[in-house]
Amino acid sequence: MGILVVGSVALDSVKTPFGEADDALGGSAIHFSAAASFFSKVQLVGVVGEDFPEREIDFLKNRGVDFAGLQVEKGKTFRWKGEYGFDLNVAKTLETHLNVFSGFSPVIPSSFREAGFLFLGNIHPSLQGKVLDQVKRPKLVALDTMNFWIEGELPALKQVISRVDLVVINEAEARELTREASLLKAARRLQTWGPQPKTVVVKRGEYGALLFYKDGIFSAPGLPLETLMDPTGAGDSFAGGFMGYLAKSGEIKVETLKQAVIVGSVMASFNVEDFSCRRLKRLTSAEINGRIKQFKDLSHFEEIKL
Amino acid sequence: MGILVVGSVALDSVKTPFGEADDALGGSAIHFSAAASFFSKVQLVGVVGEDFPEREIDFLKNRGVDFAGLQVEKGKTFRWKGEYGFDLNVAKTLETHLNVFSGFSPVIPSSFREAGFLFLGNIHPSLQGKVLDQVKRPKLVALDTMNFWIEGELPALKQVISRVDLVVINEAEARELTREASLLKAARRLQTWGPQPKTVVVKRGEYGALLFYKDGIFSAPGLPLETLMDPTGAGDSFAGGFMGYLAKSGEIKVETLKQAVIVGSVMASFNVEDFSCRRLKRLTSAEINGRIKQFKDLSHFEEIKL
Repeated sequence: MGILVVGSVALDSVKTPFGEADDALGGSAIHFSAAASFFSKVQLVGVVGEDFPEREIDFLKNRGVDFAGLQVEKGKTFRWKGEYGFDLNVAKTLETHLNVFSGFSPVIPSSFREAGFLFLGNIHPSLQGKVLDQVKRPKLVALDTMNFWIEGELPALKQVISRVDLVVINEAEARELTREASLLKAARRLQTWGPQPKTVVVKRGEYGALLFYKDGIFSAPGLPLETLMDPTGAGDSFAGGFMGYLAKSGEIKVETLKQAVIVGSVMASFNVEDFSCRRLKRLTSAEINGRIKQFKDLSHFEEIKL
Repeated sequence: MGILVVGSVALDSVKTPFGEADDALGGSAIHFSAAASFFSKVQLVGVVGEDFPEREIDFLKNRGVDFAGLQVEKGKTFRWKGEYGFDLNVAKTLETHLNVFSGFSPVIPSSFREAGFLFLGNIHPSLQGKVLDQVKRPKLVALDTMNFWIEGELPALKQVISRVDLVVINEAEARELTREASLLKAARRLQTWGPQPKTVVVKRGEYGALLFYKDGIFSAPGLPLETLMDPTGAGDSFAGGFMGYLAKSGEIKVETLKQAVIVGSVMASFNVEDFSCRRLKRLTSAEINGRIKQFKDLSHFEEIKL
């Protein structure tokens, strides 16, 4: 089954203790697609300016990402400039130029409206709602958000969350959104927002991710890495691997969700090994399989009998 | 096989957002023994003052902990007073009264000198070395330490680390000790201190623990808890469960080390559910088995085929 993703397409300038990149391909929809395209067909909806370097996305087109929903508007592409210190968990934003992204109103092409899976990247909650209004109800809708919307658009955010099946969120944001200090309580509360018990995936950076499903919890480890260059887009490549695996499987059982969290972790672990999408651009299926095995070795233990 | 533990025996006064306890049983050797005694015989070496409330340790005696090495000296028992905010990862020390602990010089009774396993709790590194001088080389020697010794007694600490098989250490302390920002590099460096490749166990609080063995890494998850009252002693109860399981198994294979990290995590997860040793005092074997199953459910996933 295919995935529809709506989110930002950006040019990022990032500096970390390990190097820097200028005007490099980025944005939530791009990082998501770069990961998801290894597992599933992806349809992307976003906006860029006339200055957008089209050739940069050729590798995604070659992997079957459909850009029929990428609007090209007069003006400049969304640009973000940021810096990380040795604590790569904390980004310092230096500049944000929304440019054409400030007027973004997602239009879903008719050929995209029956996608089986939908990922609402981190954009204004009311735009996320507008996307939902335009599509035939997918098999699974997942949503990402950030502190900016939690702090400024809480009612709209709560409203759109009640309409989705799954929320992907950072640890600190889950606490902030629910005003619960305990992560367990935060996730449990979030699960009740909406008519159906929701699935909640909590991203914890280098510590991995937690999956809160209806009756239980699953913990994916973070893989201690030799090389860690740039964490930008890690959350979106996690979501891309996660949704890509679900779409490939075509089913949403608890076991599949657990495996999808591992695949998401695998893709995020690659993404941080280089700037922009560079690592995922040169990534091979054999490398993905090798790292899945590493995650298995990392977390598997034999039965304990006392 | 039995375990010899050398460490502090204290009376702790602790306040957290969830309650408080005054002059309650604590110290590294006590928290260690409370956990390890579920799995193995334990011999304890430590010191208390004449004011020590002997009846408090009756439950440990009933579980077979041998206190023949507990010196009772003129003066008062070591007291620590501390406070935690909502971030239970960070303790604020309000008062430290070393009392009789300031003159502690461990004397290992002759009946303790052939223990199969030795845990050197967090005391002065030169005292840890003195313990090693007094015993027949155990099958496995593990050591804990803290930032205080890293900052003030680095040469002595490095020297004693070179003599042990396994180091149990906090994440931040592993970085501080090796001056490596990357946890992977920190652990790999620590492994080389000594004639044999060392095993390193890194404690990460609510995020679980990492085991760095000769050829690989294992990650134990942290169990998201309903009740979290007091983190004091979590690291020592982890070490107690870890060493207790190894001693019970009597062997030190990679698979056993992985299982031991899970058992350590299980015991730490109980320890934090109440103040002092109260949770471990009323803990049952059935509860331990139940939580081991929870850890399995938390981290197990089925084979991923792409």
